[in-house]
Amino acid sequence: MRDVVIAGIGQIPVGEHWDLSLRTMAARAMLAAIKDGGGMKPQAMYIGNFLSPVLSHQENLGALLTDNAGLTGIEAFTVEAAGASGGAALRVGVNAVASGFIDCALVLGVEKITDMVGSEVEAAVAQSSDYDYEAMTGLSSAGQAALLMQRYLYEYNPPREAFGEFALIAHANGANNPNAFFRKAISREAYASAGMVSDPVNMFDMGPYADGAAAVLLTARDTAPKDLPHPLVRVSGSSVVIDTLALHDRPNPLAFDAACQSVERACSQAGIMPGDVDLFEVCDAFSIYALLSLEAAGLARHGEGWKMAVNGELSINGKLPILTMGGCKARGNPLGAVGVYQAVEAVQQLRGQAGRNQVKDARRALIQSLGGPASTAAAHILERLD
Amino acid sequence: MRDVVIAGIGQIPVGEHWDLSLRTMAARAMLAAIKDGGGMKPQAMYIGNFLSPVLSHQENLGALLTDNAGLTGIEAFTVEAAGASGGAALRVGVNAVASGFIDCALVLGVEKITDMVGSEVEAAVAQSSDYDYEAMTGLSSAGQAALLMQRYLYEYNPPREAFGEFALIAHANGANNPNAFFRKAISREAYASAGMVSDPVNMFDMGPYADGAAAVLLTARDTAPKDLPHPLVRVSGSSVVIDTLALHDRPNPLAFDAACQSVERACSQAGIMPGDVDLFEVCDAFSIYALLSLEAAGLARHGEGWKMAVNGELSINGKLPILTMGGCKARGNPLGAVGVYQAVEAVQQLRGQAGRNQVKDARRALIQSLGGPASTAAAHILERLD
Repeated sequence: MRDVVIAGIGQIPVGEHWDLSLRTMAARAMLAAIKDGGGMKPQAMYIGNFLSPVLSHQENLGALLTDNAGLTGIEAFTVEAAGASGGAALRVGVNAVASGFIDCALVLGVEKITDMVGSEVEAAVAQSSDYDYEAMTGLSSAGQAALLMQRYLYEYNPPREAFGEFALIAHANGANNPNAFFRKAISREAYASAGMVSDPVNMFDMGPYADGAAAVLLTARDTAPKDLPHPLVRVSGSSVVIDTLALHDRPNPLAFDAACQSVERACSQAGIMPGDVDLFEVCDAFSIYALLSLEAAGLARHGEGWKMAVNGELSINGKLPILTMGGCKARGNPLGAVGVYQAVEAVQQLRGQAGRNQVKDARRALIQSLGGPASTAAAHILERLD
Repeated sequence: MRDVVIAGIGQIPVGEHWDLSLRTMAARAMLAAIKDGGGMKPQAMYIGNFLSPVLSHQENLGALLTDNAGLTGIEAFTVEAAGASGGAALRVGVNAVASGFIDCALVLGVEKITDMVGSEVEAAVAQSSDYDYEAMTGLSSAGQAALLMQRYLYEYNPPREAFGEFALIAHANGANNPNAFFRKAISREAYASAGMVSDPVNMFDMGPYADGAAAVLLTARDTAPKDLPHPLVRVSGSSVVIDTLALHDRPNPLAFDAACQSVERACSQAGIMPGDVDLFEVCDAFSIYALLSLEAAGLARHGEGWKMAVNGELSINGKLPILTMGGCKARGNPLGAVGVYQAVEAVQQLRGQAGRNQVKDARRALIQSLGGPASTAAAHILERLD
């Protein structure tokens, strides 16, 4: 198995891109990643996308997006795992390069959401849950998160306002990320008075669905050109793990088994413990997801993850910074593209390109994206090489 | 890179499965493949599916289908490339095992179509073409095939009835396949009097969209148990290649460049020429596609592929049998599952399990699935090992 490295990164700002088509958004991120990687020509592109079949009536994105960006004739197709699509696409890219079949691959995450009205988007996002037993009854993604958050409050009785710390961290970091949807810090008062989405999930407990495209350029460490413009980042752990799709099928819905296993497998490959990373790009589609993911990763005991946020451990200068460029809450949640945004942002950190959000001496990052309520979890360990 | 072999195969009959859900169809094929492979437990499953997001309102199939079949906790996600989804999923499985990350993987192709009425299905299938420029104007998949067939008739002036030979071959072979949708040979008279779908494509120039699920169990040759129940089949070549998505972007729409390149790359990996295979499971979603694929593979000159059919070269006892279990025309066209059905059928041939359709001394097969009008092409070379 060959060592796989990230040689280039590209992204467009996350937001409401009513003036950009899906193909144009994708091309900008793809070409940015190729340029950033010194112009290496990819032989393959793997696309993380969740909602194009439903919201854009467009499948077969491999042909559309590569051809549109001038890469006709390469290998390309879509990888779908709901909100973990980007992470799963990265996994496919890592396997393709590790196997020796492909020397240079683009991994693209792209999602075009905001052309549609909210109710259409909510119905589409609900396709990440069990349609016959959950979505069909009207249970939305926010509704699922609310059930989990309610259960957490019942089981562990944390202070309600503790959840707000995740939004505060995200917004504090998003304020300094030029590619973030929301670039403004928020106050505890703002969180406390936020409107309810699905009780107890309020507006700040949920990342806004937004358009976005991000890409990373993968290559093999042993065949990478010596004169690449940026330090290489090695993908030293890679995993995708699934849990039951439906929440009601889980013995303990607060356990997030797939999130747990995906971190264990990625860390085991990298030969590290989860606590050995310098930052953790966790999935905060909902604040309760970020909290449960920290506990699932073994970084806090069950029922105590919120204390890490309250104690300041998760801020940029804390023990284990999370959501360092704003996360789903402030950078925005471009669903199937999230896993690739996380990779791009982690590489920025590992290269020392994160500006005012720079995590000091960051050399190793864990990134994790979730599809559905952690029904699918994709985790990767990224390490700076030099 | 490790050698990858197919150790198990499973399928359900292709047809109108109004009594089976997507998850049940999938489970039957998955468990059949595991059983056929001596009970090896897969660590991963890659799912070829095209229309579930649109027709079943269900994404995140990795979690749904593995959990439902009792495989919770493994790696799983969907791979989408329209009609080439199954072939692309096989490609992902091959990379995962070749890289050494995964020792045993299921590749599943599943499609549930016939619960919906024809117009909904046609609109969904059109998502495999360029929505903004083709589908939006009302151009359907059959319409695209008709444009290509019309052009072929104009450029090369073959006898119109020559196209019927592809349907005759498919139906002759489907008649002996217990898993085929249509198990009845057809006559030249039936073809000549068939109703028109999209002039000049008639009812017999087009495979019927149908429900289906098929699976193959992959493992590494060097770690495969020695006591497996069936001879191993090696995947000695694997490729996915894309062309422009839209027909109007191609210098020569009759060239099927992706189909050509995908065969070249798979054959080059296997160290063979396309003519060295004993059978070719070609994509006959439309008869013109089968014809153009033969020409693209270099098996006939441009404008002359139909002669192979007319001369009997493509029948079971001919020089290069195609559609040996009925192809899309008679086995049925379960779109995103086609590539996996082809793999299953090719393994049946290579093991000598093809019954009355057995290709004599078959040791090497080429399979190729297409997404859109060969916008994406997936090709694999399968070889019997012992």
